[in-house]
Amino acid sequence: MRQSQLFTKTRKLAPADEVSKNAQLLVRAGFVHKEAAGIYSFLPLGLRVLNNIVRIIREEMNTIGGQELSMSALQNAELWKKTDRWEQDVWFKTELKAAGETGFGWTHEEPITHIASQYVSSYRDLPFAAYQIQTKFRNEERAKSGVMRGREFLMKDLYSFHADQADLDAFYEKATQAYRNVFSRVGLGERTFITFASGGAFSKYSHEFQTLCSAGEDTIYISREKNIAINKEVLTDEVLADLGIERTSLEEAPAVEVGNIFKLGTRFSEPLGLSYTDAEGKKHPVVMGCYGIGPSRLVGALVETLADEKGLVWPEAVAPFKYHLVSLGHDGDDVSKAADTLYDDLTKADVEVLYDDRDLRAGEKFAESDLLGIPKRIVVGKESVATGEFEVVDRATGKVEKKSRVEVLAQ
Amino acid sequence: MRQSQLFTKTRKLAPADEVSKNAQLLVRAGFVHKEAAGIYSFLPLGLRVLNNIVRIIREEMNTIGGQELSMSALQNAELWKKTDRWEQDVWFKTELKAAGETGFGWTHEEPITHIASQYVSSYRDLPFAAYQIQTKFRNEERAKSGVMRGREFLMKDLYSFHADQADLDAFYEKATQAYRNVFSRVGLGERTFITFASGGAFSKYSHEFQTLCSAGEDTIYISREKNIAINKEVLTDEVLADLGIERTSLEEAPAVEVGNIFKLGTRFSEPLGLSYTDAEGKKHPVVMGCYGIGPSRLVGALVETLADEKGLVWPEAVAPFKYHLVSLGHDGDDVSKAADTLYDDLTKADVEVLYDDRDLRAGEKFAESDLLGIPKRIVVGKESVATGEFEVVDRATGKVEKKSRVEVLAQ
Repeated sequence: MRQSQLFTKTRKLAPADEVSKNAQLLVRAGFVHKEAAGIYSFLPLGLRVLNNIVRIIREEMNTIGGQELSMSALQNAELWKKTDRWEQDVWFKTELKAAGETGFGWTHEEPITHIASQYVSSYRDLPFAAYQIQTKFRNEERAKSGVMRGREFLMKDLYSFHADQADLDAFYEKATQAYRNVFSRVGLGERTFITFASGGAFSKYSHEFQTLCSAGEDTIYISREKNIAINKEVLTDEVLADLGIERTSLEEAPAVEVGNIFKLGTRFSEPLGLSYTDAEGKKHPVVMGCYGIGPSRLVGALVETLADEKGLVWPEAVAPFKYHLVSLGHDGDDVSKAADTLYDDLTKADVEVLYDDRDLRAGEKFAESDLLGIPKRIVVGKESVATGEFEVVDRATGKVEKKSRVEVLAQ
Repeated sequence: MRQSQLFTKTRKLAPADEVSKNAQLLVRAGFVHKEAAGIYSFLPLGLRVLNNIVRIIREEMNTIGGQELSMSALQNAELWKKTDRWEQDVWFKTELKAAGETGFGWTHEEPITHIASQYVSSYRDLPFAAYQIQTKFRNEERAKSGVMRGREFLMKDLYSFHADQADLDAFYEKATQAYRNVFSRVGLGERTFITFASGGAFSKYSHEFQTLCSAGEDTIYISREKNIAINKEVLTDEVLADLGIERTSLEEAPAVEVGNIFKLGTRFSEPLGLSYTDAEGKKHPVVMGCYGIGPSRLVGALVETLADEKGLVWPEAVAPFKYHLVSLGHDGDDVSKAADTLYDDLTKADVEVLYDDRDLRAGEKFAESDLLGIPKRIVVGKESVATGEFEVVDRATGKVEKKSRVEVLAQ
């Protein structure tokens, strides 16, 4: 896309009331717009990043057999009364005309369990897994972490349904691996640890995926040897004994929870009547698991962990464009023409490129380019016209290479 | 996908309180789940249809230069007070903790105008167009039209921004053509008419796209000769004179509004301070247009207009799968093996196919297949094993053809 057409622009200042690094940079670069505290709109560049993350998550969910659906935001209060979660403080509640109280989904275990109950009756209907990638709403008391903790946010939740605990346990391992794949593919694999956290009535622990991040709200203790971590909330001698870890070997670090997987057991299936009949005709409640990742939170975590003093830095897999093509030409000169030609070639080759075709000073263009954080910058200057070579600058490392048109297109 | 894995199933009965044909059929076929009146979740098959419609709309919006963004559902009340729309009856309102009243967006002119005001200052920043494809919320009094009029629904809204009326007028024509393309591609082109409806302060008429539909809430008068229609609400002698149409030539018909395009002029840019400076340094309000299509309403309109007594009928462009492969085999017999092989071949060729691999009676499978409405059914029976040919049944016409494996794969 030509940058002269992009309706957003970078700006020098972030909103005065914005305290988080991620939102400051994302607003300055024109990736998001702040509507109110904890409420952000995703502008074209930001939406491209978000969609890239969503695509990766969707692929991993499909690989483990997840079936995508989309549930309503407006909730049937009756279901939530059955599980004793209607009175929780986190709701945005409102009134349906001529139909009474409702609220906006902050999580969806109740409706998915109810939907499953419409289709499951026999052991032959199990197991299966269904997932949603949708906006959820939480009436947060504080909202100071930018897109890492919004009052509305995009969430992927996978739910699995099983005849027994052993089948849940096996699927839980598959989901764990899918989560590792997601974090690795979006560029957070090395700084993300599976972390033991508090369980429920049905399992001793749940597992979080925590990404090392100075702006994170959690504290974790990392065992480098075992490549796992323990949330401070559950760090007891009993847990250490369970995991065979010495307290002295642990490393304390701030982190942000980027995923959470949980064995729900029959917490929701029992009150909501989701049961099946086994081969002997005996009725049992369905055993469930749930698995969440917040794509909009991942955008924030990527900014918090990878951005530098010059601006955003995107890994290629999630970047809004692969290349930032920067022309140093003016008014249709040879440099502009060479840049136009390279842009056309890249576009024809289906390479995602943002083309800075504006007539601005080089310094201004480079500073903006650094702020946007596109992985590779291709500079077209006078030298390019003379030699046929382009300067290709790696945003993360600053490394500069000279490449020919053919080399650029071959990447 | 193997139908034995699909967690939804067809059912004999629709919810007792469901009066609309579209929701009755969609629920029976397992495409949607009714959460409450006017509130539906889209299950895997329904979501596939919805996503196909969204993909077509997105392509057409990108073709006319639309830049996609995603705005928050939660609204900043201050913006809506400036345009005198905060007191409207349609809102779902709620309270933000420690931040006062908010509501959920039922349309997004106010926030998009405010966002644009952050980036537009000069005539050089115009024109541009931005669009969103997101859930909107309306507190409807009655909700008896299934997914054609939901209390929450998916909506595509495009907004365009111009320096003057002439530029808006030119873009409006482009948007009109994009809309025609959308309705034609989703399979409603022949029964959809551009329809003159009431304008605002800035244009004499707005234009709706109305699809002929006995369940539609509108009444339109069609001029077959001019290939346009007039909404009953504006059918006056003056309008007829404007359009050069004789009243006696008109044909009355019920219809559903599937799209709406509107010249907003400065209705929103003036109160919200969206202005630009021209080349002479003079300040003007930006001239705007907006262009809406409801993808979830289109799902309903497709069902209302195309379904028959046996069930759903999907045009190929939006169908959840292209083929419904129905095996009449049992327990790994030769018929099952032949069906398995054809399924593998189709999957490898990236053909979207739902494979009914379940061990059920042929009559039951065919009735279910008719209800699901996938465009072509491929039947694998004993004869297929003997002759190497498969029966291919067209869902819409009932026409039966015999095709070889090569012919099926070549389609």
